[in-house]
Order: sequence, then C-alpha cells, then structure tokens
Amino acid sequence: MATLTDFRRVARDVSNWGRWGGSDELGTLNFIDAAKVAQAASLVRHGKVFALGVDFGSSGPQGAFMFRQNPVHVMTVDGGDASTLVRYSPQSERNAVGRQLSGFFEDNPFRFNDDMIIMPLQAATQWDALSHVYYEDQLYNGFPADSVTSLGAYHCGIDKVDVKGITTRGVLLDLVRHRGAETFLEHGDPITPAELDAAARTQGVRIERGDVVCVRTGWWARFLEAGDGGEPAAGLDWRCASWLHDHEVAAVAADNLMVEDPISGVEGTFLPMHMLCLRDMGLMLGEYWDLEALAADCAADGVYEFQLVAPPLRVTGAVGSPVNPIAIK
Amino acid sequence: MATLTDFRRVARDVSNWGRWGGSDELGTLNFIDAAKVAQAASLVRHGKVFALGVDFGSSGPQGAFMFRQNPVHVMTVDGGDASTLVRYSPQSERNAVGRQLSGFFEDNPFRFNDDMIIMPLQAATQWDALSHVYYEDQLYNGFPADSVTSLGAYHCGIDKVDVKGITTRGVLLDLVRHRGAETFLEHGDPITPAELDAAARTQGVRIERGDVVCVRTGWWARFLEAGDGGEPAAGLDWRCASWLHDHEVAAVAADNLMVEDPISGVEGTFLPMHMLCLRDMGLMLGEYWDLEALAADCAADGVYEFQLVAPPLRVTGAVGSPVNPIAIK
Amino acid sequence: MATLTDFRRVARDVSNWGRWGGSDELGTLNFIDAAKVAQAASLVRHGKVFALGVDFGSSGPQGAFMFRQNPVHVMTVDGGDASTLVRYSPQSERNAVGRQLSGFFEDNPFRFNDDMIIMPLQAATQWDALSHVYYEDQLYNGFPADSVTSLGAYHCGIDKVDVKGITTRGVLLDLVRHRGAETFLEHGDPITPAELDAAARTQGVRIERGDVVCVRTGWWARFLEAGDGGEPAAGLDWRCASWLHDHEVAAVAADNLMVEDPISGVEGTFLPMHMLCLRDMGLMLGEYWDLEALAADCAADGVYEFQLVAPPLRVTGAVGSPVNPIAIK
Amino acid sequence: MATLTDFRRVARDVSNWGRWGGSDELGTLNFIDAAKVAQAASLVRHGKVFALGVDFGSSGPQGAFMFRQNPVHVMTVDGGDASTLVRYSPQSERNAVGRQLSGFFEDNPFRFNDDMIIMPLQAATQWDALSHVYYEDQLYNGFPADSVTSLGAYHCGIDKVDVKGITTRGVLLDLVRHRGAETFLEHGDPITPAELDAAARTQGVRIERGDVVCVRTGWWARFLEAGDGGEPAAGLDWRCASWLHDHEVAAVAADNLMVEDPISGVEGTFLPMHMLCLRDMGLMLGEYWDLEALAADCAADGVYEFQLVAPPLRVTGAVGSPVNPIAIK
Repeated sequence: MATLTDFRRVARDVSNWGRWGGSDELGTLNFIDAAKVAQAASLVRHGKVFALGVDFGSSGPQGAFMFRQNPVHVMTVDGGDASTLVRYSPQSERNAVGRQLSGFFEDNPFRFNDDMIIMPLQAATQWDALSHVYYEDQLYNGFPADSVTSLGAYHCGIDKVDVKGITTRGVLLDLVRHRGAETFLEHGDPITPAELDAAARTQGVRIERGDVVCVRTGWWARFLEAGDGGEPAAGLDWRCASWLHDHEVAAVAADNLMVEDPISGVEGTFLPMHMLCLRDMGLMLGEYWDLEALAADCAADGVYEFQLVAPPLRVTGAVGSPVNPIAIK
Repeated sequence: MATLTDFRRVARDVSNWGRWGGSDELGTLNFIDAAKVAQAASLVRHGKVFALGVDFGSSGPQGAFMFRQNPVHVMTVDGGDASTLVRYSPQSERNAVGRQLSGFFEDNPFRFNDDMIIMPLQAATQWDALSHVYYEDQLYNGFPADSVTSLGAYHCGIDKVDVKGITTRGVLLDLVRHRGAETFLEHGDPITPAELDAAARTQGVRIERGDVVCVRTGWWARFLEAGDGGEPAAGLDWRCASWLHDHEVAAVAADNLMVEDPISGVEGTFLPMHMLCLRDMGLMLGEYWDLEALAADCAADGVYEFQLVAPPLRVTGAVGSPVNPIAIK
Repeated sequence: MATLTDFRRVARDVSNWGRWGGSDELGTLNFIDAAKVAQAASLVRHGKVFALGVDFGSSGPQGAFMFRQNPVHVMTVDGGDASTLVRYSPQSERNAVGRQLSGFFEDNPFRFNDDMIIMPLQAATQWDALSHVYYEDQLYNGFPADSVTSLGAYHCGIDKVDVKGITTRGVLLDLVRHRGAETFLEHGDPITPAELDAAARTQGVRIERGDVVCVRTGWWARFLEAGDGGEPAAGLDWRCASWLHDHEVAAVAADNLMVEDPISGVEGTFLPMHMLCLRDMGLMLGEYWDLEALAADCAADGVYEFQLVAPPLRVTGAVGSPVNPIAIK
Repeated sequence: MATLTDFRRVARDVSNWGRWGGSDELGTLNFIDAAKVAQAASLVRHGKVFALGVDFGSSGPQGAFMFRQNPVHVMTVDGGDASTLVRYSPQSERNAVGRQLSGFFEDNPFRFNDDMIIMPLQAATQWDALSHVYYEDQLYNGFPADSVTSLGAYHCGIDKVDVKGITTRGVLLDLVRHRGAETFLEHGDPITPAELDAAARTQGVRIERGDVVCVRTGWWARFLEAGDGGEPAAGLDWRCASWLHDHEVAAVAADNLMVEDPISGVEGTFLPMHMLCLRDMGLMLGEYWDLEALAADCAADGVYEFQLVAPPLRVTGAVGSPVNPIAIK
C-alpha cells in the first residue's frame, strides 16, 4: 500500500496549479476548446439520444452517508386541490400563501400544480465541483479552503463551470464487458490504469485531449436490481489519476457513488483519487451516471465515442450539482 | 377580448390529444425524431457554447408568488469545519451525522465540503412539465387531473420527458431587436403571431417541425439591471398557441417568468396560453432562459439557429424541472 | 378479532360530535376548564421539573415510514465563518444572502450563528392534531376531510389548539412497572382497559375529567438502548378508546410511536384507536414522550399526578406539532 | 454614544463566567431552583392560560434578514389524496414513498394526513440559545466559538437548556401602557433601565431573582395591524443588561424581533445587549412573544406576575428554538 509520501509525489506530478494562470477555476475543462466542441458535434450520425441521469426521488441510492438523504419531493399544489383550495383558503386569515394561491383559482376554470424539492446537491446523478474536496488548507490552484464558508464556495464553485457548459466528446470504457462480468464489478478488485488502456484498445477507441471518460462498472444496474445503495463495488484505483492526467482528459464519470474504489490505496486516507483529481489536477468527477442503455448501444455498433452535453445547474457557490448528461450518437 | 367560448374553439383546433396514441405523455416532443437530432448537431460550425441557465440562489427573481421562494442553498460541511468537526463531533452522543462525518476526518488529512438545496422546481431556469396545468379535470391527452396527488404526477410528470433528453434544433426569435427596444419589451403590448413571423423573416430564419423556439423579450436583462423580479413585461399573446401548433414546434421558451403575456386575452382566465400549450397541445414551456449572450452572437453572425440540448432532471413525478439549456453554434 | 361493524358501534358510543357545538374544533380539550388549570398548578409541591421531549435531530427514531425522516438541522452561519464570511462574501455579486450577512460583520467585532430545520411535524415528541386522521370523508365533528388541502388543515389544525395551551393535570400510568417488565413491554400483548384500571389502582391514583393520561410502555428507553426506531412494541388496545371516553380524559400520550398497539384489533384496518380518538372523540394523541425520569420519580415518591404544560407550536394549518411537554411536581 | 471600551467595562461587570463553574452551559437559568419553580406554580389563582406563541407560517414577520425566511409548511399527504393515492401510487415503480403510503390505504377505509416544515429556528416565537452570539472567539463561559461547527453547537446549544424546561415566575413590564402609547413604542427612543424600574413601580410588581421578565413594546400588535415585519421599533437600551444582571433575572423576552433596540448604543457595533446577555451573562433572550392578551388581563386585574412555562424544543446543537410560552394566572 502506498504512503502519503507516495501520494504527495504523484500529486506533484499531476498538478495543474498555475497551468492556466493563477486565477483559473476551470481546471481541465480548459482542454475543451471550440474545435473540440465542434468535433464532438460531428460525432452525431444517427440522432440517437441517451439521457444518463437517474431518478431524483425517494427510490434513490442514498442512506449510507447520513448527511446525504434521498431527494424529498413535495407538492405545494396538486390535483386534489382543484375544487377545495378556492373553497377554504380565502377565509384563512392566517395563511398568506393560501389566500394568494386561491385567488388565482377564483372565478377561473384554470388550475395548476406546483412542487418543491429538498435535496443534497450530490444525491443522484451529479458533478463534483472542484471545491468539493481539499487538503492542507488549499483547494485547486491554491485557493484557500476557508473560502468555502457557510454561504458557499467563493472559489471553484459549480457556478464557475457553467461558462463551459461541459459539451465535448465522450468516450465510454465498458469495464463490465471488458472483465466479462455479468452485471457489475464485484468489490475487492480496483480498476487499474493498465486495464483502462486495455479496455480502450479492445473497444477500438482512443482517449483524446478534452474528452470526458465514462467508466461503466455496472454498479447502477446492480443497484436497480438489488436495491442496496450502500453495496460496495469496484472503482478506479487512485493511480488512475495519473492516467487521466497523461491523457489530458477533461473529466471522468462513472455509474457508481464515487468513481474511485472505496478501498483507498493510500495508507491512512479516504478518497485519494478525489484529492488528486479535484484538488491537484482541477478535474471534475461525475457520479451515479446511468450508462446501461448507452453501453448496450456501443456494444451493438462498436462505436464508443459520442457527443456529450452535461451542464451542471448554476447553483451559486455550490460544491456539486445535479445533472442529466446527454450522450448523442 | 376573447371569451371562454373562443378559447374552447382554439383549444379544439390545436388539440393533439390522441395524435400520438391514447397513452402518449410526450406531446409535441414527438416531433423530435432521430433525423431532427442529427440535423441539429450538424448546425454546430464554430464550437461556441452558450449556457442559458441563470443563477440558482438567493439573488433570483422569486418573491411575487408566495409559494415560490428563491432557492435556499446551505452547506452541510464547509471549510470552516476543517479542524473543528473532528475536534468536537466525536464526543457528541446525540448527533449521529456529526459522529459519522467526523469519523471520515479522523487520522486523515483529507477533507470535503457538502451542501443541499431547498427550492421550488420552477424557481429559476426551468421546464414546465405537461402536468403543470389543467382545466375541466383533465391533463394533456385526457389523463385525469387528480392523478397528480401529494406524491406527484402519475401521468405527464417531468420524468416522462427524460427519454427524449430534449435535444433538437433551437431557433432564437429576438423580439427586443425586432421591436428596436433598448433593453426589454415594456408591459402592455403582447407579442402576436404576426410579429413572430415578421421577426423570423427579418432574421432570415425558418421555423421547422420539431424546433424549440426561444423568444427574447429582454426581461432577464432588465431583471439583472433593475432587480425587480415582479416587474411585468411583454410576453406572447395567447393566440400564439395556434402559431406554435401550425409550425409543429416541439417546445417554446423565453427569458421571462411565463413565456406568455401576463395580460390574459381571454376573459375571466389566467394563463390561457399555458392551458393551450401544456394541456391541449402537449407542448412544454421553458421559462427564465437567459438569451442575452446567445442573442448578441446571433446578431453578430446573422445565424439564428443552433443545436439545443436542454434535458430536465428526472425528478420522479415532478411538474417542472430546473435546467441549464445549452445552445451550440 | 372485531369487525368494522363492531368498530362502528364503538365509534357511535364514544362520539363527541356536537357535544360542544357544531363548530367546535377542540374536542376533549373542552374538559379542561379554569378550575382544572388551577387544580393542576396546586399539584406542584417540590418544584421538580421533567422535560418529556426527546432530541430533535439525526439520532431520532424515524426511518420506518418513508414520508417521515429524522429532522435535518443545518447551520446557516456558524463559528467557522467568524473571519471568513466578511473576507469573501462582500465580493460575491451573485449571493445576496452572503452580501447581507457579511455586512453585519464588517467593522464590527460581534458575530452570530444561525440555523434552520427541515422536519416532518411528527418526527419526534409531538401532538397529533384532530385533523391528522379521518374516514368516510369526515374529520372530527363532521368537518369535511377535503378541507385539508395542500395548504393545510382549514379545520381542526394544530393552530386551533393553541388557545388552550394544554395545561392541566397529568397522570402517569406506568405499565412497565405494572407488568414487571425489565425495560419495555414486548410486542404481542396489547394493553387493555382493565389493565389501565389495575395500574391506576396499584399506583393509588384516580383518573379525573380533563386529565392527560401518560402511558409508559418503555419503548423510548428501549430505543435509546437498542437504536431500532422500527422495533414494534406493545401499545393500547383499540378498545381503550372507550376507557378514555368513560373517564372524560382530555388527551392521552405515550412513549412510543403511536400510543396504540401496532396490532390492529379491527379486521382490515390500520390504527383504529387513532380514528376513534382523533376523529370520533376529538381527543389528541401525544407520541414519543420520554417518561423515564418522571416514572422513576413517581415510583420513588409514590405520587403519579403532576401539573402538565404541553403547548404545541401554532403552525398554521398543521396536522401535528412538535412539543416539549413539561411535567411539574 | 458609548465606545467599545465602555462596553468592555460593562461586560466585565456583568460577566457570569465561572459563577456556576467552568463547565456550566445554563447561565442565569441557574437562578431558577426548585423553590422558585414551586413559588411560580403558587401564583396560579384563576386558571387562566395565555399562549404567547405567534403563528408559524407564511404570514410571519420574516423578510428583512435574507437568511431567515418565514416557515414553509407543506402537506405530504392531505385530504385530496383520499381516493387517488391508492388508485395511482401502487403502480408507481419509481416512487418508493408513494408505494409505501398507498399500501396503508389499500383495503382500508381509514386515512391520514401528514406534513412537514422548513424553517429557520428563529423564524417566529423563539428562544436564543447562549451559542447564538459571540465575540473575541468565545461563547458564554469561555467556550470556543469554533465549537459551533456546521454540525451545530457543541457547547451552549439549546438542547442543554432542556434540562431546566424554563419554568419559573414571569413578570410583565408593559412599556406601552407605561409610556401611554396607543399601539406600540415608536422607533427612536430606547427603553432605559430607569424606565424598567418605573414601570415595575407603577405596576406594583417587584422583579425577583430567577424571574423571566417579559417586556411589551407593542411591536407584535403593530405588525398584525400593519403587516410590515421590517418596521423598526423601540427596544431595550444596551445598558439594560446591567439592570437584568443586578436583578438576577433568569431570562428576558419581548414582543419584538430582538428585545434590544435596533439603535446600537455602542459605537461600531451591532446588538451589544445580545452580546452582554447571551455571551457575558449567559442570559437567554426570547423574541416575538405575543404579550397582547396577557397585558390586557394584567391591566384588568392589576396582577403582573404569573407562572411561566416556556420550554424550547430539544433540537440537538441548535442555537435557538421555536417555543410556545405559556403564562398561567
């Protein structure tokens, strides 16, 4: 097992601090330039659309981390109120919302429904913002970690990413197929850089600068089948950070909770690849992406590249964002 | 001013009930087929990306409708906890979240931030789902309005739309430019179907089947300038529903609160165009889309068409969804 | 096992509809008059205070019912922001809350913390309002069930109760001690009316008109010990509703999830005692009351009566309320 | 106007740090002993109950502070679902809450309503916990300010107070009556210690050790009349902290936003009395207490003392709590 000293050596090697200037908050998204965006669009041949977002709701995978609950979706007006809201609310002296709402319904045959959501920003399909993790008091590019206050991330928040829209070439690496697993990659055997190369080779696809690499581990299919959001599963070994660095990848995503393997390969640490990617390289991680239908299609036509459009919501100062990534072939 | 009888005649004319079968919940998104998706991608020439989503946060436009507050974004762990969480929480017998969280920090130099959001699903840039409005106890395609319970929309929820991803050709109609207004279209003069035609003609663009039409009224620019989320402004006259129907448009979006004009053109009603679009035609409305940068670019190069990718989040049973629509030229 | 016909006969017998007029929304709280309030205060001899409320937070008992999560408590400003909020937020153009908050800290050595809570109103120690349950389309006293809209309960909401404050004589019936159980009453053996009488007799206490009867089953102690919020346990047999009726009790409370036994004694029903108490009698139920310290004191001095002050929060239109009931001896 | 140096001198004079030991987190609640609790109960003569809590809901006074919204109350099941929930939800594969909830309704004539609340803990009638404010990195009794993390207050949280239940003698000082104002005390003229003495003298009441002093400024009546939650009004001058100290009061409450006057009497500061009370003396502040009905009764019978029971909810680590204080005469 590697030590923190090993980790620090790798961190130095993959560091992108200063690479795009001292005030950069985009990191490896800088690899995506106009030519890349245009090339990605040129990959669309058949007009097939794959929405990689999962359900946001009560059936989600949360539960293992107590600070992350499944989204709570509540109706503030619904079909049951069609005739009753206007019957009761106008007399309700003390419910200002009720009086206003029922006012819209009075002497009017038209009705509407409305709703709200309460959710951790990383409850389901998501992007981690660069400000999501840190060590030694610094975020990506040396921004002070304490600039993430109770009011949100002043630096490296997800809102900074919006300018890029995250539109580029996507490449799927189907590790389930590569390993010949039935549904998913069992826990206990992290995915190595060599394996990523081998999978790409077998699939006949090349990783290029500015790509978003999507790694299928089968975890989401397994979750839908077995319903256990806390079930551990294989992910990327921490040394894959170097592989991502060498390929000048823009971002990486997977169909599991944290892209990387829950088994930390660095002594006395938790999520070392998160640290290298987000904090040292400025490379975002996408989690809980449903790659099943896309993988089936790629296996069928042998084409593992596609246009990917995966824009986060511009939540001011957020350290992550829900997303419904769209792959187009 | 038109009467409900006039309205009902128009409703009959534009109705798409049964057009795509009795169980259809997609409505005019059916106009988007694979050929359309592919054609949209072919519009990308320069690799320019425009994110049309606005900020989700405390500076948003909500306030006028009491059932819709601005998004509340709260940090559940932040940079201020770097050294203190692990110092205090482990001893906290009664705070299970604190004990778990601090466990991740113990004997570990790595740290993370996390956050949550509380928001109406239509607080900022959004899609209205077909189940958002109804009259005479029926949603689009005749689904019963009471199928929208406290648990959400069983029919025509935003989750049904996800399958389409909403990837198609977008066309901007810049009414601010067309009218020669400085910032935005003043309240009191709804946009007519004839004006939409004239704007398209002037811009040299044709509306085609399956397009998403984006109408710029300047309201968002005005809001950023003046800060009054309740300021009324011009929108589409209710009769534009027929225009959208005739052009077999997939959806319509604008940079204001409700696409249509706040002045209802139908006696004794509120939001008649919403009813015709969502309920009778099955045509979704996009609201609070920031079209400023896109409009400047279109004015500069004279090209008012683009690839549009605007996937809602798949919130189970929701009657609307936040979105960050991406226009690519 | 009883049938719905049996249930209906009992419902008729215990019904208080009309007893205090057709517009009454207080039910058996009407038994509490000024004399009763004064008598209750006279029970205070030693000045001992017992707070019967449990923790509101992440360590609570919720989990079995998916629509009821444990309270989520989040800090909106905390000690970690002392020096950082004012350093970063003033420059944050897009975060209006941040700018306002940091304004209070500028050129000012004083600081504050603030927080919010997100919780089901019945997440922990609580009162059920009369509008919490119903059958045959009617609430207590015949109010229409559909008067509980998405905007809350127009009739029989917890806000109506506030006028009474719920200040009266409390009597503890310690069934754990009565049955000689070690910690709690095991599931499978509901508490009968005869047992309530026997316990009162053994304890040397009389139930009087207007009392709040507090039944100790030991469930809360068991939960603190074993941590399983879903563990079933003994509660009151549904026929205890008649006993409560005969004694003209004002309300009943227990240290478990639902006062009554989870085993329904009425064929094809769920929570029959809730229906009889709340809907037919207009008698409120208190749940998750921590009676341990009080019970120990009562056992020590042999006095099972006390002044009880248990005011719900006046949440407009709510069907329940958190409460921290105070017993004073 | 006083300077920070003046303030620090007063702070030293009124400090209770160490008075009840180095680990004390109760502050002046220590003045309430068993004899005091018993004496308070003996003040009940007529059995009249006054609930001092205001509405928790959309009609509340919040708005001026952006981090404090009015409570949002939402129904998770309501009367509109009586027949529809069970009709639609069982088929909803993706809505686990819906399936569970509708399961309770299947083959069962019984129904229930349920709800949740989202609110700042200080949105309406409330207690400030001692951890609410601080300066120079220290809370009451020298506890470190950074012990209030994103997980809540490790020291001096509202949960620590629960042990006392806050049951004692209450005394009303009716400054509206004393000044002869019509509805409320206009802004611009803070209440002085001398005025508190004069009011007590006129009313014929003595302040005693362990009392909770309730100051009526008329602000709440004014708010109900005019609806402006941001309207400034008179409150206690910061020097009243010394008066509260000298009288060994247990806590102080008022019918306005912050007890003390919004005009700070100490140069370059905000809320100096909060600092002296909460941080230096360990004396809690109660805000938004509705004293109108109580004041009318006191004026009628000339008795300005009563039993007060005002227990906060035991929200783990909270820096404040909603409360419905009960005054009994």
